[in-house]
Amino acid sequence: MSLKKSWVTSANDPATDFPLNNLPCGVFSLDDEEPRCGVAIGDMILDMAGLEADGVLTLADDPVFDVPFWNEVMERGPATWASLRARLTALLSADAPDQAACLPHLYRQADATLHLPFLVSEYTDFYASRNHAFNVGSMFRDSENALPPNWLHIPIGYNGRASSVVVSGAEVRRPLGQLKPPGAEVPYFGPSRRFDFELELGVIVGQPSQGMVSVAEADAMIFGYVLLNDWSARDIQAWEYQPLGPFQAKATATTISPWIVTAAALAPFRTAPPPREVPLLPYLREPGPMLYDIALEVGLTPIGGPETVISRTNVRELYYSPAQQLCHHTTSGCPMNVGDLLGSGTISGATKDSRGSLLELSWGGKEPITLATGETRSFLEDGDTLTLRGHAQGAGYRIGFGACAGRILPAAAVPDWAR
Amino acid sequence: MSLKKSWVTSANDPATDFPLNNLPCGVFSLDDEEPRCGVAIGDMILDMAGLEADGVLTLADDPVFDVPFWNEVMERGPATWASLRARLTALLSADAPDQAACLPHLYRQADATLHLPFLVSEYTDFYASRNHAFNVGSMFRDSENALPPNWLHIPIGYNGRASSVVVSGAEVRRPLGQLKPPGAEVPYFGPSRRFDFELELGVIVGQPSQGMVSVAEADAMIFGYVLLNDWSARDIQAWEYQPLGPFQAKATATTISPWIVTAAALAPFRTAPPPREVPLLPYLREPGPMLYDIALEVGLTPIGGPETVISRTNVRELYYSPAQQLCHHTTSGCPMNVGDLLGSGTISGATKDSRGSLLELSWGGKEPITLATGETRSFLEDGDTLTLRGHAQGAGYRIGFGACAGRILPAAAVPDWAR
Repeated sequence: MSLKKSWVTSANDPATDFPLNNLPCGVFSLDDEEPRCGVAIGDMILDMAGLEADGVLTLADDPVFDVPFWNEVMERGPATWASLRARLTALLSADAPDQAACLPHLYRQADATLHLPFLVSEYTDFYASRNHAFNVGSMFRDSENALPPNWLHIPIGYNGRASSVVVSGAEVRRPLGQLKPPGAEVPYFGPSRRFDFELELGVIVGQPSQGMVSVAEADAMIFGYVLLNDWSARDIQAWEYQPLGPFQAKATATTISPWIVTAAALAPFRTAPPPREVPLLPYLREPGPMLYDIALEVGLTPIGGPETVISRTNVRELYYSPAQQLCHHTTSGCPMNVGDLLGSGTISGATKDSRGSLLELSWGGKEPITLATGETRSFLEDGDTLTLRGHAQGAGYRIGFGACAGRILPAAAVPDWAR
Repeated sequence: MSLKKSWVTSANDPATDFPLNNLPCGVFSLDDEEPRCGVAIGDMILDMAGLEADGVLTLADDPVFDVPFWNEVMERGPATWASLRARLTALLSADAPDQAACLPHLYRQADATLHLPFLVSEYTDFYASRNHAFNVGSMFRDSENALPPNWLHIPIGYNGRASSVVVSGAEVRRPLGQLKPPGAEVPYFGPSRRFDFELELGVIVGQPSQGMVSVAEADAMIFGYVLLNDWSARDIQAWEYQPLGPFQAKATATTISPWIVTAAALAPFRTAPPPREVPLLPYLREPGPMLYDIALEVGLTPIGGPETVISRTNVRELYYSPAQQLCHHTTSGCPMNVGDLLGSGTISGATKDSRGSLLELSWGGKEPITLATGETRSFLEDGDTLTLRGHAQGAGYRIGFGACAGRILPAAAVPDWAR
């Protein structure tokens, strides 16, 4: 695939995240106006509600774009998604005859506020990177039994908290919680001291299911993808997580990037998962390559900057694809809904500089990393900004996600009644 | 407290679940009409949407009862809940002057279909019964380390799947899943053979939170309670649950009773939790008794009947109250929303006949129980109907929940692509 040229000239920059090949879906607002659906093109946003009101682009009898979420578009299904993409491609391509119809509905991204692009129905977090599972298992348990016995057979996951999902740019307050340091007799209540990020790919379910679906059917239900940071309080997690899994450690916030990159835009970047170490049960076998080649990086910016890139890895490190995860999610008959969000689990490569969390990068705090400023980090400090970036690289263009960033605010004071 | 007499004579029967003291909130429909809000009184339902349309009872400028959920009423907050209860009590009391205004809006429960009484935002399941935690720990791990180290300090819980919540009467299909029997080298995919119920109290959050709330604040956020059966596939659970907790084992269905029994109706039945075995951290201490004295029983009816009551216990067996659970849920800053549902975890007493699951009643299948028909059960069989019942006993009246029932359908055939 090569670059599709657009008359929006900033979309032809090989370094833009948003060429005509991408067309990701977001929700934006300008000044005091109501948030509505928009599509990113170069450094601009195409106001979908405006186009719809003018009759330039109509998906349905009723308006679907004058709302602050893409769920209504998702509900209409894959044929609608495809025709929308075709229509937008025609409207914005370099040889489009009707530029004048779009021009009044183009706004500069720099002038817009971005919001969560969809209503999150429910949120599930998987654990699908082998290196991450091995690293965490080595630290929380022991390296002899690092990989759980089920791990090579099941894309294991747990249900997270949809109410805690926020969009890039939202500040994240360091959580309070029950903590029991190693060697302490009893727990105490206070701010997390081991607050961490997790580099993940987020999957947005665009079609519902009743009953079990195959991997191929699951793949067709996926509307698109975002970058996802599952903020994690490692000290709360260590004390609370057995036997029921992570709970408050993961409930403070989960940040997603503001643009839904559609499955269609990523289709040219399909890649096969790593070799299977043991055969998968038939229901989990993929009819074709269902992972993506998406380069990822993590930047940490302390107060005053500059940013240090502390990790570089790739979505293809995942052992299970999003389609496999979603298929497994339905095995019990669990109904999936439009707007369900699935996190891939932290994506870590095999090398030290490709680990997707500070827990792994600093090996549980034993090997702090050094930033460009000379400061060191075992876990996140108040004031730190953590930024995820990702893109699939085409010939002369990239399909990018935009930044997924959040800055850490100091913990709230422990209330008097909790002392 | 004694019985408040109503002119709806069936509400004065000491055995009814729904005297004037109760006034629980449900959603009902008649024939082909749209589902709408109703309140149970004796063997009748008071049609709230009809009362509202006639101007007999008005909560707000816009209608709030002509929808199939109570979320809009909950959103209006505790002062509205109290005035609604006072108004309904006045309308239905034996000395009410305006019976004629209500009469056209009374329907027989026997003629109505009941629906989920609220939109479930998110669903969390706790693990707050000491006997249950000990019993399960003894079987899944060992009796030396049965109670997890955090259990006496934290009301531990995990996030469940809101999309799987159904109302009493919905049939429940035995799930498929990955199973690895003891001694097997590798897992296989097939129907659960150890499908179970869990006897729980469900808590309905009626007000949102941002940031941490105290136990007292949490208590004031609770709109009401239902009985809850968290159907559980023990064999799927055993293989999948480490280290991330239960996932597909609990995602098939969770059945709730159809009437929300309000916190106000249960207020006379407050009781203190069992003695603390170790001191709780200050944030979890209760300003007063926040559990309830609610008698519970479980009936199992095989095909052809009759029913055998297989367990009797009480909500006061819980070690942590709903208010403590909700408080802990907010410690990390996790936002709670109107319509969040919290399960208490299985409620088990100390004696064998007061255990709240078949896993415990049959001790993992080693000691099958015998039904009135002479049949035995280790776990649920296809065609079995499982019914939870509960009530708080006043002087000459009871605050009941109505039945929480579900019948087991055979598993779907394993699809060809999964063989």
